[in-house]
Amino acid sequence: MKRSFIREILENTTNETISFAGGLPDAKLFPQEELKKSAARVMNDAVSLQYFTSTGLDKLKEKISQIYNNDGFETSKENIMITSGSQQALDIISRYNNNKSITIEAPSYLGAMNVFALNNMSQDSITLKEGGCDTFMFNTSFKKSKLAYLIPDFQNPTGYTYSEEKRKEVANIVKQYDGILIEDAPYSEIYFEKKYDSISKNIPNNSYHLGSFSKTLSPALRVGWIRASKELLEPLVAYKEAMDLHTNGLAQSILSDYLKNNTNFISHKNLIRKVYKKNMQIFAGFLDEILPEFKYTKPKGGMFIYGKFEDINSSELVNKCMEKGVVFVPGAEFYNNENVNSEIRFNFTHCSSNDIYKGLNIIKQLISKNDIKSA
Amino acid sequence: MKRSFIREILENTTNETISFAGGLPDAKLFPQEELKKSAARVMNDAVSLQYFTSTGLDKLKEKISQIYNNDGFETSKENIMITSGSQQALDIISRYNNNKSITIEAPSYLGAMNVFALNNMSQDSITLKEGGCDTFMFNTSFKKSKLAYLIPDFQNPTGYTYSEEKRKEVANIVKQYDGILIEDAPYSEIYFEKKYDSISKNIPNNSYHLGSFSKTLSPALRVGWIRASKELLEPLVAYKEAMDLHTNGLAQSILSDYLKNNTNFISHKNLIRKVYKKNMQIFAGFLDEILPEFKYTKPKGGMFIYGKFEDINSSELVNKCMEKGVVFVPGAEFYNNENVNSEIRFNFTHCSSNDIYKGLNIIKQLISKNDIKSA
Repeated sequence: MKRSFIREILENTTNETISFAGGLPDAKLFPQEELKKSAARVMNDAVSLQYFTSTGLDKLKEKISQIYNNDGFETSKENIMITSGSQQALDIISRYNNNKSITIEAPSYLGAMNVFALNNMSQDSITLKEGGCDTFMFNTSFKKSKLAYLIPDFQNPTGYTYSEEKRKEVANIVKQYDGILIEDAPYSEIYFEKKYDSISKNIPNNSYHLGSFSKTLSPALRVGWIRASKELLEPLVAYKEAMDLHTNGLAQSILSDYLKNNTNFISHKNLIRKVYKKNMQIFAGFLDEILPEFKYTKPKGGMFIYGKFEDINSSELVNKCMEKGVVFVPGAEFYNNENVNSEIRFNFTHCSSNDIYKGLNIIKQLISKNDIKSA
Repeated sequence: MKRSFIREILENTTNETISFAGGLPDAKLFPQEELKKSAARVMNDAVSLQYFTSTGLDKLKEKISQIYNNDGFETSKENIMITSGSQQALDIISRYNNNKSITIEAPSYLGAMNVFALNNMSQDSITLKEGGCDTFMFNTSFKKSKLAYLIPDFQNPTGYTYSEEKRKEVANIVKQYDGILIEDAPYSEIYFEKKYDSISKNIPNNSYHLGSFSKTLSPALRVGWIRASKELLEPLVAYKEAMDLHTNGLAQSILSDYLKNNTNFISHKNLIRKVYKKNMQIFAGFLDEILPEFKYTKPKGGMFIYGKFEDINSSELVNKCMEKGVVFVPGAEFYNNENVNSEIRFNFTHCSSNDIYKGLNIIKQLISKNDIKSA
């Protein structure tokens, strides 16, 4: 089995590396004091340290379902299963659906593609552009697979967002064939303009909607969830329990306590939206100034700027860059079969302005040496 | 896929249920104040809330390897992979070995049997008695499977312990066929008389040794580990990362901080050994008094007393008991194919003396109604 390029990079970078690679939130923004207070409160109760039930802490499931209800998406705690990050949610669903075909976007989230491969799923890729996937291709593929994996909000890696029209089209196709959509939404709260309605809201009985606190609060806590109908959730419980018994109970207790004070979470989300939007503008500004030949679309949220050079092999470029202490992810990593070699994903949430400036200039110098061309 | 009887019970018991079912540690013994202090300390550093590397926190791996070195089992941090509880360790190893045959004890740990089934492993059961497995049967089975799963210390469910002689015999057989032993050791630190050398110590390159903080410190933290040669660990990393990226980083940081002060952990382990030994003696005393027809061997450590009635169907009995607010696990749950129906596993670490007395008397009354007989 192949390891993730990004996870390997994470293990091989030092404190000096300028990393545009991972989807790391800005650690300065973690609501550290609030989470610390919550930890102290919940650790007064020994129950926070004992075994938990497999589907997750009721109080936390209630708070998560409230977030959906506030968006007009009717949800109760029975519709929520807590998972060890959304990565595990993907694995649970894939294990249950192992050996099936699945329709995915090209490019798509590397960690999902690895999980689908691990579970012997045959992946059928359809073209993704700003505004959403090619729905003609989606229809053709989904008609056969009846199972799809999409990231409609500020996608990883592209940053692209499905328009409201595309969302409706996709929901209609899923309904038409009575199939299942896995809607991955780790970035949906990190919008720069407006929040989009999930596709799942239109097809509540034909979807798994995946959420996570990794991008909004803290990745270390490894708390994600699946929102689905009771019928779809029920058979997943035996998998979850065989895989790790239950999700870290201390983290669930801390989050449940933190979410009691709803204004905390709302103002924290407002803060990260503001900061990340600013970061995106800074990164885009430096790109335009330093690497004007890099073509990209400004994302409407999330953590990534994606684009391409005309005639640069980005996989070769990243190897040269690594030697000089700068990393990013070459687009080739996000495709299964296609021969894509000029694309790049830049993360803009993790580095300081100084490092962005410095890092992009190092890339510029390496490019101008002119020995990195696409094959 | 079948759910675990024990996990389902956990979800259906109330605060009033007298539960001899789960392997729940006594929550009163959690080193709550010390863990709380560690949490406060590590949460001062934003790094504790960020993404972690897939194989685990270096500092924690070092501390775990030190525990092995103190027992004369040479181990470095490169021999350790942190997992989301040992349950996940079992799943990672089984996924890597999927579709193979595996030699297991009868009876064995239910959660492992479920994971082996999930990974399409064909399980060959060999008889387990106090003192260890039948090594003639082990040899015959292992010769073919070249992969075994054993719990040599205070086994779950039986509480049986492998003698030093049996440990050597098993190690020799594993070496002879150059196979692999998965040695599960969640209870090894909870000894009432003495600590046994692991079997793995004799076959460091032919074993995965699984450890956990769930029984000694806190199950909610979901931190376990695999100790193996670098060669055996290396291919597991891609699985771990596809499954949940990494183990909860806050929990890893808390444990790493807690273990800095080694005398804390040593005196805590001494305390739980003393209390659990006393609990076992109390439970055994009440058993002898209230249910003298229940035949069992006193365990030398761990959390369970296992035995049987002469002519009682324990699966029927547990259903009657549940109605009266008492639960235990009938032996049938721990076997794959055999028709075992008179055996029972009692947990003795979770209930108060009062509840043990009350619970066993309820069982006695239900038995004396005399309508529960083995088929």
